Amino acid sequence: MSENVAVVGVGHSKFGTRKDVNMAELAWESIKPALETSGIEQKDIDFFVVGYAGLGGSEAAMPSVIAEYAELSPKGSMRVEAACATGNAAIRVGYTAIKAGIADLVLVVGIEKMQESPNPTVIELIGRFGSYFWEFENFGLTFPGYYALHGTAYMMKYGATEEDFARVAVKNHYYGAKNPYAQFQKEITIETVLKSPYIAWPFKLFDCSPITDGSAAVVLASEEKVKELGIDERIWILGQGTGTGTANLSKRESFTSLASARYAAEIAYKMAKIDMDDPTKYLDGANVHDCFTAPEIIAYEDLRFCKPGEGYKMIREEQTYIGGKIPVNVDGGLKAKGHPIGATGVSQAVEAYKQLLQKAEPGRQADIKKGRWLAHNIGGTGHFAYVTIYGLEKR
Amino acid sequence: MSENVAVVGVGHSKFGTRKDVNMAELAWESIKPALETSGIEQKDIDFFVVGYAGLGGSEAAMPSVIAEYAELSPKGSMRVEAACATGNAAIRVGYTAIKAGIADLVLVVGIEKMQESPNPTVIELIGRFGSYFWEFENFGLTFPGYYALHGTAYMMKYGATEEDFARVAVKNHYYGAKNPYAQFQKEITIETVLKSPYIAWPFKLFDCSPITDGSAAVVLASEEKVKELGIDERIWILGQGTGTGTANLSKRESFTSLASARYAAEIAYKMAKIDMDDPTKYLDGANVHDCFTAPEIIAYEDLRFCKPGEGYKMIREEQTYIGGKIPVNVDGGLKAKGHPIGATGVSQAVEAYKQLLQKAEPGRQADIKKGRWLAHNIGGTGHFAYVTIYGLEKR
Repeated sequence: MSENVAVVGVGHSKFGTRKDVNMAELAWESIKPALETSGIEQKDIDFFVVGYAGLGGSEAAMPSVIAEYAELSPKGSMRVEAACATGNAAIRVGYTAIKAGIADLVLVVGIEKMQESPNPTVIELIGRFGSYFWEFENFGLTFPGYYALHGTAYMMKYGATEEDFARVAVKNHYYGAKNPYAQFQKEITIETVLKSPYIAWPFKLFDCSPITDGSAAVVLASEEKVKELGIDERIWILGQGTGTGTANLSKRESFTSLASARYAAEIAYKMAKIDMDDPTKYLDGANVHDCFTAPEIIAYEDLRFCKPGEGYKMIREEQTYIGGKIPVNVDGGLKAKGHPIGATGVSQAVEAYKQLLQKAEPGRQADIKKGRWLAHNIGGTGHFAYVTIYGLEKR
Repeated sequence: MSENVAVVGVGHSKFGTRKDVNMAELAWESIKPALETSGIEQKDIDFFVVGYAGLGGSEAAMPSVIAEYAELSPKGSMRVEAACATGNAAIRVGYTAIKAGIADLVLVVGIEKMQESPNPTVIELIGRFGSYFWEFENFGLTFPGYYALHGTAYMMKYGATEEDFARVAVKNHYYGAKNPYAQFQKEITIETVLKSPYIAWPFKLFDCSPITDGSAAVVLASEEKVKELGIDERIWILGQGTGTGTANLSKRESFTSLASARYAAEIAYKMAKIDMDDPTKYLDGANVHDCFTAPEIIAYEDLRFCKPGEGYKMIREEQTYIGGKIPVNVDGGLKAKGHPIGATGVSQAVEAYKQLLQKAEPGRQADIKKGRWLAHNIGGTGHFAYVTIYGLEKR
């Protein structure tokens, strides 16, 4: 058993439209650098976990397909899925396997290839990750619609505007432009967002994260292994919380907050010994699940970066830019970096590693003074929530 | 952290054609008795895992759908998949969460509803769990074909006959007839098998496990929780191994053995401190993955119940009936009990609990003298292998 678990290596494919590679090749693009940065080989891996939501491609036994290409057999594996929180859920499985003492080195790969989705279309497949029967089939809601209900409720309750939401996209594109792995590497203005066509009011095209192909990988290691291999460049998992929401949105108490995210954050903060009254005092930055612009603002509040109803002020005041109260999504977030569902949570871990070790690209490196980074990964509209806290120092 | 993890409660739905219930209701049929037998309530659960291969039904966020119906929110959850080894992979996630000390009580539910599969048909969906591109798409192989290659190779190499394979089905139907949860509760003869129509030579209809709807659930608990709740009726997880095979059958060295299963068994035996030279000395019985008849015989060999090439003699000599060297699949196995993919591995854990605590139905209770039971769960044709060993006494 290992009280502490470290991220010792990371890899990240270029996110975007990746018709140039098949699934196994796309996985290898992140596995190879993850092995290289950790200084280990395939034979050293005890167990591997594939985060894959299944939204594209025809292959079913994905860990086996990846294992063959990446030469990971005969080591044990499984696929993990928690809708858009799949990547972080996969990290949980690797983390607990090491903490439980049944593995010392675990490879976690998150992957999705959404541009080649077979029938039913990827929009329909994503739409099913709500309550299929009540909301998708009966009301025809798909994801922009689900989150638009939250965006609308937030505007109504607190007086936020479409401009406020647009500011999130502007920030995330600003940083995405500095991230060579991002799907969109172009800065935009508030006008770009406001003039883009409506998808589901109040969301316009530029309020929405894109359909993305990509993979990300991390190598996790036990405390003993870190010592044995003499790995200096590593970060630690300080805490992780997870929560599950109702499938039916009609059963939710509030649309301006995700109960599962608040629940997951509380567990993670407690585990990482972070004061819940002001977690920003402990964090150098965060990645939050900005599948649309409004949910990033709601995440500020669910994660207690500010009081309820004040999230939109944080973006108005640029408090989530580098230099502000807490930098958020300075890799471009789901909005500009892209959102290949299974890869997103793993990509957040890659970003935590890069930020904490001050390896982020020029112009998007946050100041690292407190030594902790948070990842907030949501599946569905809070159907699943995972919050993981990474740190330079052990627990 | 908890060195030892126990199964403290179990539940099992009726397996078969279950058009009378939806997914959430089917899950509840096993969750309810699992909670009742463990003496806990939903609020006591820290985390839950859903083993679901996704072969039927339109709902995508299955843990959330089940959480809402079974009142498990806001507790964290995820879905786990490893083809037909999904159930045992889900148990691994619950097991490691407790062993890691991040949960004390975990609910693991395995479920599949295959009779209502949408397009593509369930046969096609199962067929993809090989190497989709090379074998399914190019050669049109589906699962009976994949395993028929193994059955044929076994016959060629060792001189086993179609009658030998038929004997497996006869045994499993004999015990299935005594299991009220089994899909088929009818005894059959060798003639029944031999006269049934060919599906893929040498397999006839009665060599094949059926398409099944069903769920199974277990509650796992830490050592501390077992003590705290004063739970007397529990078994312990003594060891678990997992292995991954190549996706392409053409890359396999042998067709008379599954390398991933041998690898998984070695890890499990080592962890459970079982002598690999004769594990049957340590085991009161086993559940093995008889998706077809021949693979049960191959499993005897991969699990070292006998030497390579002698598996067919074990069934000829009725050594895997109760009273023989080691009783195997005395709940009917996949063949007669049914094989609702995500549920199968969890159903095996339910059977281990019932057998070791001598709660199996009349006529199918094995003699419990050694206090250990093995579960062998295969995904694909050895694409995934999970072997778990349960015991009356802690490690």
